[in-house]
Amino acid sequence: MNTDSASIGLDTTDSDPATSALRTSAAQARSAELEELILSNPERFRVLTGDRPTGRLHLGHYFGTLHNRVRLQDLGTEIFLIIADYQVLTDRDVADNLTAHVEELVLDYLAIGIDPARSTIFTHSAVPALNQLMLPFLSLVSVAELNRNPTVKEEIAHSRQSAVSGLMYTYPVHQAADILFCKGNLVPVGQDQLPHLELARTIARRFNDRYGDGTRLFPEPEALLSSAPLLLGTDGSKMSKSRRNAVALAATADETARLLKGAKTDSERHITYDPANRPEVSSLLLLASLCQNRHPHQVADDIGSAGAAALKKIVIEAVNDYLAPIRARRADYAEDRSHLRRVLREGNERAGAVADATLAEVRTAMNSHY
Amino acid sequence: MNTDSASIGLDTTDSDPATSALRTSAAQARSAELEELILSNPERFRVLTGDRPTGRLHLGHYFGTLHNRVRLQDLGTEIFLIIADYQVLTDRDVADNLTAHVEELVLDYLAIGIDPARSTIFTHSAVPALNQLMLPFLSLVSVAELNRNPTVKEEIAHSRQSAVSGLMYTYPVHQAADILFCKGNLVPVGQDQLPHLELARTIARRFNDRYGDGTRLFPEPEALLSSAPLLLGTDGSKMSKSRRNAVALAATADETARLLKGAKTDSERHITYDPANRPEVSSLLLLASLCQNRHPHQVADDIGSAGAAALKKIVIEAVNDYLAPIRARRADYAEDRSHLRRVLREGNERAGAVADATLAEVRTAMNSHY
Repeated sequence: MNTDSASIGLDTTDSDPATSALRTSAAQARSAELEELILSNPERFRVLTGDRPTGRLHLGHYFGTLHNRVRLQDLGTEIFLIIADYQVLTDRDVADNLTAHVEELVLDYLAIGIDPARSTIFTHSAVPALNQLMLPFLSLVSVAELNRNPTVKEEIAHSRQSAVSGLMYTYPVHQAADILFCKGNLVPVGQDQLPHLELARTIARRFNDRYGDGTRLFPEPEALLSSAPLLLGTDGSKMSKSRRNAVALAATADETARLLKGAKTDSERHITYDPANRPEVSSLLLLASLCQNRHPHQVADDIGSAGAAALKKIVIEAVNDYLAPIRARRADYAEDRSHLRRVLREGNERAGAVADATLAEVRTAMNSHY
Repeated sequence: MNTDSASIGLDTTDSDPATSALRTSAAQARSAELEELILSNPERFRVLTGDRPTGRLHLGHYFGTLHNRVRLQDLGTEIFLIIADYQVLTDRDVADNLTAHVEELVLDYLAIGIDPARSTIFTHSAVPALNQLMLPFLSLVSVAELNRNPTVKEEIAHSRQSAVSGLMYTYPVHQAADILFCKGNLVPVGQDQLPHLELARTIARRFNDRYGDGTRLFPEPEALLSSAPLLLGTDGSKMSKSRRNAVALAATADETARLLKGAKTDSERHITYDPANRPEVSSLLLLASLCQNRHPHQVADDIGSAGAAALKKIVIEAVNDYLAPIRARRADYAEDRSHLRRVLREGNERAGAVADATLAEVRTAMNSHY
């Protein structure tokens, strides 16, 4: 979930760079092992992932996380895809059009190849038993631990304590409930998400120690670090819907061409893939290469000294070719809103049944099954 | 809920005495009006009250809150009685014997005259839709507001941030969910509880303003201030199970006599009701008077100069006489555990249906009914 403004989670950057680097390199090594295990034994994994319903998904989401979800699904892991509709309430425009935003998200999922027969798409608000897990989990976490959330820290440092809602503050505990309600053991994340996942692992461990009576009710979920390289927006900054610098999956071919034609490049006519020194040009090369499934150096070599205009032409073609079947499927699904609602209803029911079963186990473990 | 260690809620004393005094006197005036309204129109009120299941209830609970609940029930208001089983998790001894503690509480309720056909007895853990309300409610409250909770403030001031769990921290929001899930409009409280109730009112108001679309989904619950005078424990301090200074409703007549014989008094043989200067003697007189439904001065006059031994003899008799029918009923109910469990199961089902209906309205108001 690296380039991803819509993806679940607050932006978190660890305040201690040494700890952060260590954590990241350990997670990278483990992720490589996990990829091997997924190939040999996919059914051993249950993946929890998802997005906040803030609008249409774009290419940053796609190559950052969505593509990987479809890959994991097609390898045979079980996917739970949460639409975090309680995590957008502070944005009034979004909250007022929640139904539409959720439907757009489901459309994007279906269009890219998420198969509701194999993957469970559901919303926070429809699964009370999941949300109830917040309560016992909150009892296992101290305020000191919640304060370590980098986003909260930052807000409070700017003396805007009143800007941090109770929901934002407790968000990492809610995310632990998202992962653990389905006993998810694998969470695809960007490295900024590692601290949150660590808290989910802590909660799982504490619950097992405290109430497990020798058994391990919850798995300790592991991070699958994304290996996706970072795509920049057309203005050279982070790709984001609100900056209008990102190509939506649902955009038309013309809209795509218009946006990419305006992309920032540099004055050097000879096109080379050099992310450190030529970030904008390299990001465009990367985008074309991802769409064409080849190396960005190859794309650059083909262009040679033909300049930015030639680069953009190739990128536009690559993107529109790549997205054409996705867009066609999206248009088909958009015709049938009742199908969308059925997908969501069935996903919510499936998630609800899983959550009810987990909550029943939790209540028994806690001696509260009267 | 004044003398009440088991009752719902953290101990809260307002840090600003002037604000606190103003708040109390306004609540007292309004409570007098409410008492009139209850008499003329009881069915207009839905009362939310309850206890944390920490053990057997004692005379402090009884004359502080329990007696009043039965009175309100018998006047015809609808009572929702929550057993706050998620609010005792930090006490390991209690948590490990939760089922037993909950059953003891139900036994006490039935013994004192709570009628499960008219009043709904239920537990937090059994009503997921109630707990889910935590999420939207948390979004309506800032961390700055949560920090104003006096207990949290005190803990953090003693630099024991790690001792405040996320559950304790968010407790006032959970209490708002308790009250609002059933659209409770009346909450019997001691004055220490007024700040919490104020937050529940704030949440109701903000929800209505933000999502109400002109309608008022939630009432703003009002405080019914307890007029019950404070009973001291037999050692002269606050009555509390853990201090072993309180007569449990379920105690035998002999246990009652033994405990009250050891009660602290003073060296003045002439017995007078003078709470300011003779707190222990006056508390014993008050206890006898509550049991005999007469004024403590009358009890004192009857004793005259017969001294503390005569006082204790009268108190022991009064308490044992008063509790005899309650204890007899308790013993009967204790014989039939399956009945207890049925009461709780039916209460949980009824509360669950009410919570489901409220959550459905909330989701519709929030545009999250897909």
